[in-house]
Amino acid sequence: SGPVKGRKPHWAVRASEMSKRTFNPIRAIVDSMKVAPNPEKPLISLSIGDPTVFGNLPTDEEVVQAMKDALDTGNYNGYAPSVGYQSCRDVVAKYYSCPEAPLEAQDVILTSGCSQAIELALAVLANPGQNILVPRPGFSLYKTLALSLGIEVKFYNLLPEKSWEADLKQMESLVDDKTACLIVNNPSNPCGSIFSKSHLQKIVAVASRQCIPILADEIYAEMVFEDCKYEALATVSPQVPVLSCGGLAKRWLVPGWRMGWILIHDRRDIFGKEIRDGLLRLSQRILGPCTVVQGALGGILRRTSSEFYHNTLSFLKSNADLCYTALSAVCGLNPVQPSGAMYLMVGIQMEHFPEFENDVEFTERLIAEQSVFCLPAACFEYPSFFRVVLSVPEDMMAEACQRIRQFCEQHYQDGEGCQEPECDK
Amino acid sequence: SGPVKGRKPHWAVRASEMSKRTFNPIRAIVDSMKVAPNPEKPLISLSIGDPTVFGNLPTDEEVVQAMKDALDTGNYNGYAPSVGYQSCRDVVAKYYSCPEAPLEAQDVILTSGCSQAIELALAVLANPGQNILVPRPGFSLYKTLALSLGIEVKFYNLLPEKSWEADLKQMESLVDDKTACLIVNNPSNPCGSIFSKSHLQKIVAVASRQCIPILADEIYAEMVFEDCKYEALATVSPQVPVLSCGGLAKRWLVPGWRMGWILIHDRRDIFGKEIRDGLLRLSQRILGPCTVVQGALGGILRRTSSEFYHNTLSFLKSNADLCYTALSAVCGLNPVQPSGAMYLMVGIQMEHFPEFENDVEFTERLIAEQSVFCLPAACFEYPSFFRVVLSVPEDMMAEACQRIRQFCEQHYQDGEGCQEPECDK
Ligand SMILES: Cc1ncc(COP(=O)(O)O)c(C=O)c1O
Ligand SMILES: Cc1ncc(COP(=O)(O)O)c(C=O)c1O
Repeated sequence: SGPVKGRKPHWAVRASEMSKRTFNPIRAIVDSMKVAPNPEKPLISLSIGDPTVFGNLPTDEEVVQAMKDALDTGNYNGYAPSVGYQSCRDVVAKYYSCPEAPLEAQDVILTSGCSQAIELALAVLANPGQNILVPRPGFSLYKTLALSLGIEVKFYNLLPEKSWEADLKQMESLVDDKTACLIVNNPSNPCGSIFSKSHLQKIVAVASRQCIPILADEIYAEMVFEDCKYEALATVSPQVPVLSCGGLAKRWLVPGWRMGWILIHDRRDIFGKEIRDGLLRLSQRILGPCTVVQGALGGILRRTSSEFYHNTLSFLKSNADLCYTALSAVCGLNPVQPSGAMYLMVGIQMEHFPEFENDVEFTERLIAEQSVFCLPAACFEYPSFFRVVLSVPEDMMAEACQRIRQFCEQHYQDGEGCQEPECDK
Repeated sequence: SGPVKGRKPHWAVRASEMSKRTFNPIRAIVDSMKVAPNPEKPLISLSIGDPTVFGNLPTDEEVVQAMKDALDTGNYNGYAPSVGYQSCRDVVAKYYSCPEAPLEAQDVILTSGCSQAIELALAVLANPGQNILVPRPGFSLYKTLALSLGIEVKFYNLLPEKSWEADLKQMESLVDDKTACLIVNNPSNPCGSIFSKSHLQKIVAVASRQCIPILADEIYAEMVFEDCKYEALATVSPQVPVLSCGGLAKRWLVPGWRMGWILIHDRRDIFGKEIRDGLLRLSQRILGPCTVVQGALGGILRRTSSEFYHNTLSFLKSNADLCYTALSAVCGLNPVQPSGAMYLMVGIQMEHFPEFENDVEFTERLIAEQSVFCLPAACFEYPSFFRVVLSVPEDMMAEACQRIRQFCEQHYQDGEGCQEPECDK
């Protein structure tokens, strides 16, 4: 071909279709909110899933020390294999291996955060034009990545009245011959819910009947409150192959360090060499996570004290109780008690707040009047709820609940012709 | 739709088309070489562009200290914005800003290594079905990423007899109405060549005439030997918009840390908001580089001593001279003198080595007989050459050259009917 003859080219640089399809709904909703907090009250932000922002939840000293040790060896400055150092993959494999779901180094791929783990897993499992099943409410990155890759998203419902268990029937009804994988997020962002072993078994049964592999987003693995037990999905899935995505971000309170992993569970050899090779090839595009953090992994996983984990969880649990109790007493709100992770979802009886069109407007006005910032659950494809992040210091949590109560009291209206009985809280 | 009625689904998990298209030619060629080194000689690997593997080129102490300082603040554990902390973008902007090509924080996007910088730049500039112009010989990642994204690659030639300058005419002849960008890699991997200011101006003139933006891969920025001057491409490009990709990997000798960046040079506002927004959206997929390294950036860029840079370069230059001199004296080889980076390309007069079909076979036998591992330039789409990495300790460099000489002497044949005069080296 060559340049068109006789016509001078002109400048017309356009952003690619993919960049336009890549879309973070949280950013879009939050940016559109553009509302100033009440200048008379200091802002309390309960919006970001980053446990480090308030400084009240530092990581364990051993975690920092492990990084310094890795730096001091001088052995972690060069390129690692794109899937991570063999020795570090081995450390992760040993840490997560268990009799029901054994792992070896070759089953572990280290990634730049759990986000890249999910990206690689989706990119290897699905072609453009295929679809994936995604929880609603659910973490927005699944849709962002899927649309970016040209993959369609179908939502299965989580049921608040059943502690956010999945609607299995509706889930199974979504499957068609283009369904490439089922995403299961447990413990859940934004719900803070934990699936029981028997519920996980039922989910696996759906995948097994339909022959669909599972992408298990287990970034909040083990982050469950006392009385509750976390089960890795792969332990109840001898048949269905699972890519479990995890990382250091939440449990070790270092989300910025961008250390994630994929654990490949494939006891029936259904993924086989095909998917493993695909993951390896895709990992070569940007070459894995920071080698210093890789070098620290052994120390981090071995030396972090059980006290540290315990303290984090009892702090989150105490905030969860505080928030749940306070908001349960507020007319027009239905908080759902969480069992883990670091979130709590609150239902809004919209019919009692007729001033507000939806959860976005509700949370927007909550900022404007009370300087409390919660994410509207529209960010998670789930209207009429908002999400509270539980990692804030206790006094801020209490103050925020107090302000939310005041806000609701000012705007609550007994619904005429409204189904619900009047509030007698 | 729903599952096909009456037919039981079966397992058939296939890796995606994209994962199959994602292809690292170096890995493919090297893996296919599968040849054991000579057990009587210890292996000398001159194949990987990782200056840290031999331990003779540690990074500066200040670089390590900056990491420890960042860890100690406790301020770099949380999520940064996906394009990096504002303060760290500012540090990079100030470091690279100059009167001819000014930069501000908003012009800098921090990435997970220069690899991700290149990935984001390509992903925002080109759609599937479009093409990009790529140097030959050149770094293999361009093609890997382009094919992964469904973008076509067209090669423009670098001319060894002109110190690896680009064949501008041939370059321009490749342009068509689907050409989305021109990749310029200076200093060059694998050539070790540096473009003069006037040659850069001529390249920019082509892009300007054809209205094609430039992706400048400047990961080896400032890595030039004395007597030679490095010019950032953007400084000679007031009109043509440039995405300059760089990072810490090579100059600061920490490739594993995965810190890269895109510098957006767009003085005529041709990229405008469109490309900036696209890069921002794409960055949200995996959320940027490790925050500890971000926190260390200020210290790294400010405190690394000029001695450190100087020592690295004089070491590389001395190895380059050693290697060039030694191999110039070998019949059948034509080394091309480098001016920077950390590589040297060696032409093989294949007609004098009739035993070997090509550069791959030549280097394969060099391993088998002499335990010296150089990459065949087929890895860079350029047959009949091999690439030498110059970062090895001096005694290994000397020993390797000695063994290459021995190998060539054993296999060199005066070509009957061969064009070249007989070797009188
Ligand atoms: C459910 C879920 N998955 C994945 C991630 C991403 O984790 P990372 O920061 O390691 O990329 C998050 C972060 O908030 C999350 O909530
Ligand atoms: C020309 C060139 N560009 C980019 C890179 C990748 O740099 P990084 O390790 O920062 O991803 C390399 C690495 O060898 C290179 O040689």
